[in-house]
Amino acid sequence: MSTTGRGRLAVVGLGPGDETWRTPEATERLAAATDLVGYGPYLRQVGTIGEQQASHSFPNRKEAERAAFALDLAASGRDVVIVSSGDPGIFAMASAVVEELHKENGSGRWAGVHLTIVPGVTAATAAAARIGAPLGHDLCLISLSDVLKPWKVIEQRIRAAATADFVLALYNPLSRHRPWQLQRALDLIGQHRAAETPVVEAHNVGRPDESVRTLTLGEISSATIDMRTLLIVGSSTTQQFTDGAGRSWVYTPRHYPDASQHAEQ
Amino acid sequence: MSTTGRGRLAVVGLGPGDETWRTPEATERLAAATDLVGYGPYLRQVGTIGEQQASHSFPNRKEAERAAFALDLAASGRDVVIVSSGDPGIFAMASAVVEELHKENGSGRWAGVHLTIVPGVTAATAAAARIGAPLGHDLCLISLSDVLKPWKVIEQRIRAAATADFVLALYNPLSRHRPWQLQRALDLIGQHRAAETPVVEAHNVGRPDESVRTLTLGEISSATIDMRTLLIVGSSTTQQFTDGAGRSWVYTPRHYPDASQHAEQ
Repeated sequence: MSTTGRGRLAVVGLGPGDETWRTPEATERLAAATDLVGYGPYLRQVGTIGEQQASHSFPNRKEAERAAFALDLAASGRDVVIVSSGDPGIFAMASAVVEELHKENGSGRWAGVHLTIVPGVTAATAAAARIGAPLGHDLCLISLSDVLKPWKVIEQRIRAAATADFVLALYNPLSRHRPWQLQRALDLIGQHRAAETPVVEAHNVGRPDESVRTLTLGEISSATIDMRTLLIVGSSTTQQFTDGAGRSWVYTPRHYPDASQHAEQ
Repeated sequence: MSTTGRGRLAVVGLGPGDETWRTPEATERLAAATDLVGYGPYLRQVGTIGEQQASHSFPNRKEAERAAFALDLAASGRDVVIVSSGDPGIFAMASAVVEELHKENGSGRWAGVHLTIVPGVTAATAAAARIGAPLGHDLCLISLSDVLKPWKVIEQRIRAAATADFVLALYNPLSRHRPWQLQRALDLIGQHRAAETPVVEAHNVGRPDESVRTLTLGEISSATIDMRTLLIVGSSTTQQFTDGAGRSWVYTPRHYPDASQHAEQ
């Protein structure tokens, strides 16, 4: 390991859960790293690390600080990995790292650091896979967290997505500090979509305590939802059925009503 | 290999490009399969297959037929994999398979077939990773193909996404049979977004002939785009810069203007 000159930094998506969904590129960067940087639970998700590897745990919501720390480490010659759950570009660390790079562009502080973003399986597609294919048609991914953006922007986006009949994948639906936002979002969606619309409630996908169940928009309640829940709200065409073995399936067909009329365009 | 009783079927996402982004679960199912089923180019993407493995190549747009064929094979006791590029639940085969299962639910035709959807890295997050973090905020994934849905539905969704300041990831932007739709979509977006908005044009991500470049909404042209292109159109907050080494970066910050005012809610 060199401690002089310029090193490299990878922002790695672990995928959801265990190594079954972790890409070879992610595994390779983790194995080669001298230093792992991340929010504590994501570092624990990595699993056993090498004896020669350093691990730097940061609290949540310190994205900019974590990014600058990792870039500094890499600039000192280390081989650094920032770990994210899922995909690092979806409501995760990649954006903060590139933004820090932008701030210091021209200063030379991190010039020569080789930065790579390593994509991963994101929570929405993993949750969808467990229940069938609810994301089979056009969809929106929305984070319900209003820590970094105004709630009115979130409302506007939910309204737009609901009006235009998108499937919605809702990340970060609820936390102790944001207790009412989810119900408000569901109410907004309910103004444009039937109470029978299938909703997939996926907890801890890919973990030992995973649970995925199908409800309806009329049934869903904040009581069973937390930060590790991913919600998928179907569109007007999303279907639900139970097979002969009692397993629930949800899918959104790729075809859409009136497709035969598109020749009029 | 058993040829009596009930087998199993996996709808596997290969991820984009080569094995670097293929999950261990996908690799394991591919290795165990007796039969691989898929659109020709996706079967070629799998790479070398085992001497004892059968390969069944289907033309594009025959999703229902391909799904029923694979389910029948599995019902005969085979270990079947349907291959999709990217994630099988995003504009790919998972939806068609679950829909076929739904049609025959109750008939017993495919009862007992064990069906698994194996998620993968989807094209949007892979393309995003190559250029930074353009998907760092709320986003919509939209297929511009009007083969299975009316163009007016696509227009409505693009208008909604543009109005509510979502980042847009556009799949299937253009084909020989759909020459004008992309320009119409870009014009619609341009009614709500500045000509300077960064647009990422990603071709064949993860393949040897990969190319990813940054343009603006005002610059982008249908001339350089085909079915293997993934387009990411930034939101009003998406940033572009070129670093000291001449590399272009695009990112969408997770924070949004006026976030400090959200306490008023």
